[in-house]
Amino acid sequence: MTYCVGLLLKEGIVMLSDTRTNAGLDNISVYKKMYVFENPGERVIVILTAGSLSVTQTTMAKLQEAIDDDDATEETSIMKARTMLDVAEIVGAELARVAEDISEKLSRNSQARGTASVILGGQRRGGAMRLFLIYPEGNHIEATADTPFLQIGEHKYGKPILDRVVSLDTSISDAKKAVLLSMDSTLRSNLSVGMPLDLAIVRYDDCRLSEYRRIENGDPVFAAMSLAWSKALRDGFSQIVVEPPAND
Amino acid sequence: MTYCVGLLLKEGIVMLSDTRTNAGLDNISVYKKMYVFENPGERVIVILTAGSLSVTQTTMAKLQEAIDDDDATEETSIMKARTMLDVAEIVGAELARVAEDISEKLSRNSQARGTASVILGGQRRGGAMRLFLIYPEGNHIEATADTPFLQIGEHKYGKPILDRVVSLDTSISDAKKAVLLSMDSTLRSNLSVGMPLDLAIVRYDDCRLSEYRRIENGDPVFAAMSLAWSKALRDGFSQIVVEPPAND
Repeated sequence: MTYCVGLLLKEGIVMLSDTRTNAGLDNISVYKKMYVFENPGERVIVILTAGSLSVTQTTMAKLQEAIDDDDATEETSIMKARTMLDVAEIVGAELARVAEDISEKLSRNSQARGTASVILGGQRRGGAMRLFLIYPEGNHIEATADTPFLQIGEHKYGKPILDRVVSLDTSISDAKKAVLLSMDSTLRSNLSVGMPLDLAIVRYDDCRLSEYRRIENGDPVFAAMSLAWSKALRDGFSQIVVEPPAND
Repeated sequence: MTYCVGLLLKEGIVMLSDTRTNAGLDNISVYKKMYVFENPGERVIVILTAGSLSVTQTTMAKLQEAIDDDDATEETSIMKARTMLDVAEIVGAELARVAEDISEKLSRNSQARGTASVILGGQRRGGAMRLFLIYPEGNHIEATADTPFLQIGEHKYGKPILDRVVSLDTSISDAKKAVLLSMDSTLRSNLSVGMPLDLAIVRYDDCRLSEYRRIENGDPVFAAMSLAWSKALRDGFSQIVVEPPAND
């Protein structure tokens, strides 16, 4: 499984992913699910992936190949595409193509299909900052002022905190805290989501990776935050009074 | 959808269910999902249901019919069964039988299957208090000291709070608060779980329903608790400091 989350705020984009990959329950590995494509000051694209590792790795490799191609054009390279919407279209098309190709291979021996979805965020110089969720079929939705966050993978455990504290006006600093606490709840409840974590920040109009952190297992700041949140929840819980109903 | 949760504590059993039933997204109704079978002072059994309404209603009707039968025996009536384990076996067998019968009917016109699962808690005089989760196939698991709560239906949103605050030693009063807050998180995130709620408490060795409450939409105590929890979460969130990493 996987948990990835992206926030689109007035101040910028905050993206967080875990790194656990499993084939069955007894084959667990660490793979980075965050991919950064960057031409600093001109364009930055961050992609988070969930789903079949074979599909996501192949898709990212193909996107890189298209960027490196001497004949790369606006239509083929996400580093040349005219807009972030065009970037999302290129990634979606590649994702669907690779998934179809791999599913075709798999179908010879099983009914399994390979699919994946991604969160894509970024900005090109002179353009708007945008954040998309791209589905396995290649179509996409976009973060908006009403719903400024997108999630893929095991999204349920970490959603309540986002619902309660994240809005378009949330500061980058609070947003970091929100995605880390959202991940913390997910890590506690689903073993197939695991450390280390990758955290990326892109501030508005920076058009580069403003901040990147790999948060390792046992990271003291993350551990302290996790403990403080547990304590805050328990303190909050103990302070709440449920008035005795009439028949108590 | 549905959310039902049961807690087995030293002080007793706490069970909570929602009442929303939907056929598709445009056909929503209120149905009670909590069934109480009681011979006060002798035996009390509380059942929470999730899944196909046709399966759960038919199963409960058959269980009642078996109780009312003049020839009811230890093997057929949950009010005569020797132990709570035997009760769970009778309910599991009936649930699987009804599901199979209904799926057989459905299969004539569609690939749909009717299935359901239940949480069953209770105590007979002289016996231990027990809490089971019975799967659609009729097999079951039981709450233990390590994991004193069981959930069916939309269980993910409401699990983090239970993981953090519920143990075997939790008081009935705190347990009520915990299941109501767990439900509150679920109601916020999944529209197919809805008010009113049914809350039942069975204190150890009471062998009767010690407390029952229907909590209606707009219930002032529940609304106040929900607000207080939101505030506690936001206050807790704002007090947590994420130390700036080295590269900030």
